[in-house]
Amino acid sequence: MAPTAGGQGSGARLRSDGLEGQAGSGSRAGSGSRAASSAPAESGSAAEVGQTSSRVSFQTEPARYRHWRLAIEPPVATLAMDVAEDGGLDAGYELKLNSYDLGVDIELYDAVQRLRLEHPEVRTVVITSAKEKVFSAGANIRMLATSAHATKVNFCKFTNETRNGIEDATANSGQTYIAAVNGTASGGGYELALACQHIMLIDDRSAVVSLPELPLLGVLPGTGGLTRVTDKRQVRRDLADYFATRAEGIGGARAVAWRLVDEAVPRSEWDQSVAARAQEFAARSPRPPDGRGIQLTALDKSRSGDSIGYRHVSARLDHAAGEVSITVRGPRQDAPADVRALYHEGDAFWPLAVTRELDDLILDLRTNELELGTWVMRTEGDSQRVLAYDRLLLAGAGDWLVNEIILYLKRTLKRLDVTSRSLIALIEPGSCYAGSLLELALAADRSYMLAGQFEDSEPRAEAAAIVVGDMNLGPLPMGNGLTRLHARYLGDPDALDRVCKQVGDLLLAEDAERLGLITFAPDDIDWEDEVRIAVEERASFSADALTGMEANYRFSGPETMETKIFGRLAAWQNWIFARPNAAGPDGALRRYGTGQRARFDRKRV
Amino acid sequence: MAPTAGGQGSGARLRSDGLEGQAGSGSRAGSGSRAASSAPAESGSAAEVGQTSSRVSFQTEPARYRHWRLAIEPPVATLAMDVAEDGGLDAGYELKLNSYDLGVDIELYDAVQRLRLEHPEVRTVVITSAKEKVFSAGANIRMLATSAHATKVNFCKFTNETRNGIEDATANSGQTYIAAVNGTASGGGYELALACQHIMLIDDRSAVVSLPELPLLGVLPGTGGLTRVTDKRQVRRDLADYFATRAEGIGGARAVAWRLVDEAVPRSEWDQSVAARAQEFAARSPRPPDGRGIQLTALDKSRSGDSIGYRHVSARLDHAAGEVSITVRGPRQDAPADVRALYHEGDAFWPLAVTRELDDLILDLRTNELELGTWVMRTEGDSQRVLAYDRLLLAGAGDWLVNEIILYLKRTLKRLDVTSRSLIALIEPGSCYAGSLLELALAADRSYMLAGQFEDSEPRAEAAAIVVGDMNLGPLPMGNGLTRLHARYLGDPDALDRVCKQVGDLLLAEDAERLGLITFAPDDIDWEDEVRIAVEERASFSADALTGMEANYRFSGPETMETKIFGRLAAWQNWIFARPNAAGPDGALRRYGTGQRARFDRKRV
Repeated sequence: MAPTAGGQGSGARLRSDGLEGQAGSGSRAGSGSRAASSAPAESGSAAEVGQTSSRVSFQTEPARYRHWRLAIEPPVATLAMDVAEDGGLDAGYELKLNSYDLGVDIELYDAVQRLRLEHPEVRTVVITSAKEKVFSAGANIRMLATSAHATKVNFCKFTNETRNGIEDATANSGQTYIAAVNGTASGGGYELALACQHIMLIDDRSAVVSLPELPLLGVLPGTGGLTRVTDKRQVRRDLADYFATRAEGIGGARAVAWRLVDEAVPRSEWDQSVAARAQEFAARSPRPPDGRGIQLTALDKSRSGDSIGYRHVSARLDHAAGEVSITVRGPRQDAPADVRALYHEGDAFWPLAVTRELDDLILDLRTNELELGTWVMRTEGDSQRVLAYDRLLLAGAGDWLVNEIILYLKRTLKRLDVTSRSLIALIEPGSCYAGSLLELALAADRSYMLAGQFEDSEPRAEAAAIVVGDMNLGPLPMGNGLTRLHARYLGDPDALDRVCKQVGDLLLAEDAERLGLITFAPDDIDWEDEVRIAVEERASFSADALTGMEANYRFSGPETMETKIFGRLAAWQNWIFARPNAAGPDGALRRYGTGQRARFDRKRV
Repeated sequence: MAPTAGGQGSGARLRSDGLEGQAGSGSRAGSGSRAASSAPAESGSAAEVGQTSSRVSFQTEPARYRHWRLAIEPPVATLAMDVAEDGGLDAGYELKLNSYDLGVDIELYDAVQRLRLEHPEVRTVVITSAKEKVFSAGANIRMLATSAHATKVNFCKFTNETRNGIEDATANSGQTYIAAVNGTASGGGYELALACQHIMLIDDRSAVVSLPELPLLGVLPGTGGLTRVTDKRQVRRDLADYFATRAEGIGGARAVAWRLVDEAVPRSEWDQSVAARAQEFAARSPRPPDGRGIQLTALDKSRSGDSIGYRHVSARLDHAAGEVSITVRGPRQDAPADVRALYHEGDAFWPLAVTRELDDLILDLRTNELELGTWVMRTEGDSQRVLAYDRLLLAGAGDWLVNEIILYLKRTLKRLDVTSRSLIALIEPGSCYAGSLLELALAADRSYMLAGQFEDSEPRAEAAAIVVGDMNLGPLPMGNGLTRLHARYLGDPDALDRVCKQVGDLLLAEDAERLGLITFAPDDIDWEDEVRIAVEERASFSADALTGMEANYRFSGPETMETKIFGRLAAWQNWIFARPNAAGPDGALRRYGTGQRARFDRKRV
């Protein structure tokens, strides 16, 4: 976020990019899939152009980017921000000075994903600006000012996840991001740089970095800025305080001395220095010189008002009940014999395909279906096949692509952890909660496992069983650094030991309940009532209180920079977003750029 | 918080207890000190009886308790809750079923403090109820429903600090709190039990523990409940989820199996079991059998609309500027020769006296002066004397009373860390920021230290100097477990080493700046402008954004249960408190007890 108010228009004309139904890319959804979403104004909020009547799509590809230029000269890729002013998701603002909205960030996310999975040859990614004198002015203020509360919060969550992904690529993929800040980076612009491993700032007596949100807009930096300044870059907190109240920013030697950037480079040495630094980081990367990337083809997705379907994942949307029923299907075929065969399957390889589908589903539901507050998850398939795929991944984890697929699954499961929806896992006969798919049940707020069979409908079905696999013991940690199993037994290490001894065993409901792996194990007689009541009850509660409770319970135990960003920082920001001093008619966010000063209630809370 | 709506009255009649000017206890403030506080209704909020026109006082003593019965039979003290229904701070509610408001909690805080400092002979404190069938129904709901946002948040902060103090007594004073839950404990009632080391629940087929806030009120438990359930008692998170959605609570064996309580005891064995458990914990205490307590006499306090004065601390309130100028004075005499002499001084002993005054000032300003958003702190006195007192305390730390005084100072400084006001320390000639008092500057968001002298007014004064002492290196950690010095140099251990090597040295502005101990060191020419601009600028910013920024910056690095309660949990609760689903006219908090169901916006944010 930063000092550009963008355009002044307020019409309802919609841009074509990023909107479902015009996404192309093999989506089966035609324009017929555009559903009017119910969007009553929130109490106290004014007209909000951020409430579009079409769904946002998260699918794109480099050929369709409007805001980024991706150039690859191995081992370096350059991702240059070049935001199209008239390319906003909504028509109510202009994306001046490389300010961005969700549509710009969707392209960034796509680029980050493709660089990891399609480009083993890329070892350094340079994020820079294609504009003169400005790196990025951050999130577009008019977009924020006119967005509904939920839209702002969702936007920040997604942008945070993308920046965490950038850090994950640097830490775990040998693909290091460096920020070549060739002009002023304000607010979200500087926060994007903060997500990079190394920040170079051009030293031309005008370029600065800044976090002007507090003085100019009365809000916090929305993408981890405060936390990264103190916890990642370890700027002393009193200097950080001064910095975040100084709208005009800091550049040059002082920015280096305060640790805000790593180096300040004169314009005359700029290109050469950036290139040299990119090569240095590339030289340290373990990515294979001869790796072969796979292609991420368009998802095979169908979307209507009450259903979403992919090859391995489907969802039924029940707007009356406020519920989504999600089914994740296990592999239809046995796992390939080896990693070599995996390359042959490309993005059809089940673990990658199911992860991409789940990722897209989470983003679609989060952004487009705010009133569906409970996600009921089921799995269907053969547990042994799931475990075989897991074994293939774990055995081949030294391979860069296998590594990427596991990391992608990790990040997608983390999305669930920070999703503000109640997650309930149902474990029934025919399910395949084993290994990687068991994580869905472990991520859930509650799980229900049928003891025995459904006597009327399928009396001879095999009883539901779950299987703990090696995939549950390390490679898929939560944001707090713990596996979901570890977090589950935080107070009971003996219980964790007992579970670890049963790796690979089929655990029926009674065993699973005894081991504490599930919440409840009703039998056929109680099942329907118990599950129905749980779901109905959830829908009857305050949506906000549920969000707060889940955000706390899901992260017991240790905290990391990541959990602090999603917990502490985001919670404070949400509070500020909901307060009149920011979002009220006289609040700073709404008044910015109008020439009128904000009026503040000075009471400290 | 819990299922009692209290009374229905809504008049403005004020109760006498806990209100400044009627507090007696040597307060010099007569009724003439009652200042009408400006209390414009917040946008979107309805009539709020919680906005009293008199100041709240935090001073009381056992003889004046209306809500608690304190009985001491060494080594056990019993603190029985017996809330007077008509004893609320405001007249708009009745405190039925041992529900409580701030006034009740002020008495609890007083009791906890006196038990620590006045009663070395008490080794176990049993918290129980003097009512039939009910332990405590938690915070009074009508009080919450009719309170302004800031009042709710302030109330939760103070109750949290008191419960943290209970845990501190258990962990560090050999004074173990056990909860004898002799009837249903709901919401805040159960949260009070959660702060105790050991929870006994009467097993009579009716008594339960519960956290009904979410299902009944659409808010979170406000006093650390969710965090303590998972992080302290380590209840599995899916069971915790079920528990916190089940308004009717859980009792008996299931409460034990789920770790919600430590034991369920039949009525026939109750008295005997509680007594036995109290003796068991007492037997493990290191508190001396022959210790002599000191008496906490009434504070010598004067209070008017624009000033607050004590013996060692004073404050000037500038309502126009939104600023408080606080001055803390160092000791007037040299430290006593030894710990024995310290006992002789009693509560006049400078470190104890200044801590009590600072504690009261923080609470007074926080509760009664919401619009004074910046606290500018100064010290005055002789650094060497401060250091001598510190040395006496550190050398005598094996003594139970010395230990208590250090712990009290620690808790008081922690109050600063979670105070939602901007803290600025000014370090001028004549100041005594040394050792324990240097913590004030280290707790500040920024510090300004004059380089040299004020040439016009005091050209020959000795230049300001600060001194790092051993008191800064361990005994006064923040809530995150780090010393303020350590937290300051989180990213720069070498700098911390350098500072540690200068323990005891007088550090002038230039040295202090070089070492990173202060923020800025302007000289006489720049001083006035720099300080004025900093303070004026602060007053011009959004109060909410400042609160959010400071809450994040003050706690970089590791997190503990305590910081999670004040950061993650409280931030989410504040957000929920500000949302229409809770506090709007149709929200759950406002609708509770009216017979009308709450109406929720189902959108998930």
